[in-house]
Amino acid sequence: MRSDLDHLMEARGLDAIVVSGRAFGNPSLVYLVNGAGITQGIVVKKRGETPVLIHSPIERDEAAASGLPLVNMARYRFTEILRETGDRLKAMVELYRRIFADLGVRGDVGFYGTADQGQAYLFLTALAEALPEVRVRAEYDENLLEVARATKDADEVARIREVARRTCEVVEETLAFLRRHRVKGDLLVRDDGSPLTVGDVKRQIYRLMAERELDASEGLIFAIGRDAGVPHSRGRPEDPIRLGQTIVYDIFPRYAGGYFFDLTRTFCLGYAPPEVESVYRDVAECLERVVAEARVGVPARHLQQVACRFFADRGYPTIAENPETEEGFTHLIGHGLGLAIHEEPVFTDVPTNVRTLQPGHVFTVEPGLYYPDRGYGVRLEDVVWIDEGGEVHNLTPFPKVLVVEM
Amino acid sequence: MRSDLDHLMEARGLDAIVVSGRAFGNPSLVYLVNGAGITQGIVVKKRGETPVLIHSPIERDEAAASGLPLVNMARYRFTEILRETGDRLKAMVELYRRIFADLGVRGDVGFYGTADQGQAYLFLTALAEALPEVRVRAEYDENLLEVARATKDADEVARIREVARRTCEVVEETLAFLRRHRVKGDLLVRDDGSPLTVGDVKRQIYRLMAERELDASEGLIFAIGRDAGVPHSRGRPEDPIRLGQTIVYDIFPRYAGGYFFDLTRTFCLGYAPPEVESVYRDVAECLERVVAEARVGVPARHLQQVACRFFADRGYPTIAENPETEEGFTHLIGHGLGLAIHEEPVFTDVPTNVRTLQPGHVFTVEPGLYYPDRGYGVRLEDVVWIDEGGEVHNLTPFPKVLVVEM
Repeated sequence: MRSDLDHLMEARGLDAIVVSGRAFGNPSLVYLVNGAGITQGIVVKKRGETPVLIHSPIERDEAAASGLPLVNMARYRFTEILRETGDRLKAMVELYRRIFADLGVRGDVGFYGTADQGQAYLFLTALAEALPEVRVRAEYDENLLEVARATKDADEVARIREVARRTCEVVEETLAFLRRHRVKGDLLVRDDGSPLTVGDVKRQIYRLMAERELDASEGLIFAIGRDAGVPHSRGRPEDPIRLGQTIVYDIFPRYAGGYFFDLTRTFCLGYAPPEVESVYRDVAECLERVVAEARVGVPARHLQQVACRFFADRGYPTIAENPETEEGFTHLIGHGLGLAIHEEPVFTDVPTNVRTLQPGHVFTVEPGLYYPDRGYGVRLEDVVWIDEGGEVHNLTPFPKVLVVEM
Repeated sequence: MRSDLDHLMEARGLDAIVVSGRAFGNPSLVYLVNGAGITQGIVVKKRGETPVLIHSPIERDEAAASGLPLVNMARYRFTEILRETGDRLKAMVELYRRIFADLGVRGDVGFYGTADQGQAYLFLTALAEALPEVRVRAEYDENLLEVARATKDADEVARIREVARRTCEVVEETLAFLRRHRVKGDLLVRDDGSPLTVGDVKRQIYRLMAERELDASEGLIFAIGRDAGVPHSRGRPEDPIRLGQTIVYDIFPRYAGGYFFDLTRTFCLGYAPPEVESVYRDVAECLERVVAEARVGVPARHLQQVACRFFADRGYPTIAENPETEEGFTHLIGHGLGLAIHEEPVFTDVPTNVRTLQPGHVFTVEPGLYYPDRGYGVRLEDVVWIDEGGEVHNLTPFPKVLVVEM
């Protein structure tokens, strides 16, 4: 949680943190600037103090929306630093030297935010050499920003609920769109009698998202039949929409200051084969079982174990026994959700994963069973939130019904 | 250009390159996987050889769309490596050791692609220590991937032209949408007589983009009056649409394998004040002047100098003489455009910027004059491409007309 930042810095022995880079694809920066619409920035926070945002002069309005104390980059006259140093890397080091001097930053400083990995390596290596009064610090696993972001406060949960509401509307409207089409043989057809395709449906979904200001930048999964049997297959645009085939519809839009939602339902139009019905019931039951196990203090990896054991007990292959299986349950049971589509907590079932579930955690529970060679796959995904009192809430108010009557 | 990769590796003394990370916000990875819809991956390319994509098992279909030779990550059994090493950083180093051994990678290896900066620093430092047969290499400025991406081949230009066509349609339809509204006093009003707002127009633009499958993930600028006078102000949703005020409309969608377009026009609805008309003419003339100076071999910084000199000659303040000015011409004349909205070439006017314009470069030319205290700003932006024969093409087939008749 934002209010934990000082505590987390203290636990890591950090005197200050820097979060920087372009805002696009940079959830830790977006987090610290409270979703302000800047394209890039440098946030410096000393322990016990409010973060300061150093922003581009042409983004001063958007920077102000962060609510943070501002420093206009223009004052550093970066092009003059470039002229003096004659080298962009040296100029960046000199810029940070001046910023740190102005803000009184010294001691152990942690660095976060996305960048080109090679450039980050060179920059932080050079900075560590050039600034004797600063110790460059970083964390590889569960870094400070990832841990802070993992537990959501009330405002963040309200935003996630709003994305949830709009996402459910889109899924409901997608089903209405499908139902509006005629059936010819086992195909859905357009007004002109030609087959409705995955591409048509996806275009409609993108329209429904845009009308609700949902950002679709991470794409969309609408995969039918065999493709539904490969978890991250996005669906082939030319595939016709056929009755009785599983459709995995996985939608993960962003809205309201950058928060994601993530919802998966599996549908069969008209009817479902008995085998699919049976697999669907097992997946739905697994989801309930896993959610029932979620509570404060439980190891995150325990949820993965519960899902694998549940499916193994019913005779399905799982990655627990065969990490290379492409049939049965082939992926993680869930992931944290927030300003990134995948974030803390992580549910990998290894002894080194000592994460436990905490108040404020928001994460997906998404069991699935996949049989690409038999032409189907089933996945169901809800989002769960553990509130401050430890109560577990399902944030996905969308029913689980396999067959869509046509 | 993609076909330059081996040559660029040789010039830098690199035996291999690694481009990795999540695909979102990672244009160098998207480039090497040819826009395939994976969410993460590791691409390894040895000099003189085809790149290899190491992909998640659940993304095998999307990975195949890259056209690259594939290695399924499942074969490395990463969770077992995690168990053995007991630490995520050590496990990543061990994973790369195994990948490099399998692919015969040794010698000088360059690293690219976005990551958390602190994690990248720790990872590459640890890798350099752990693998004696590998020298970790990186470049801070104009890195290999940035340079390769900067010069577009025919396929890339065709994709950018397609985004251009759709973007122009959206702008045309936005004007039609505005014209469909009634005028009451100096305001545009909705059917119910209440004022049309910036928020309404933006929602319509997002709809128009979605209908054309344009991804709006980087947002949109539609700013009126005083806000038009601050280059990166995105516009306040509650602002009413008023006649006679400048509207800066800057749209930068993504489509067709991830390529961006970038188009800015300034409009006044109904009429324009004489001062704005005069400034508009100067901005339009500056744009023409700068495009006329673009040719192979010209230093990139020369275009910035041309724009600043042009405006200074007409009595406008510029950042050339005062880097802190917030009036007049206050930003760079343009930026490279491709899989990132801002990429090479860079036009900063400093002696260390020795970049010259090259065949294949695609970049924006976007002069602007800003007077926030007088309540207006004007920017015009076209995209220019230098073809293999050195001919300069304007890729923005959209007229420059200030006043929109109502």
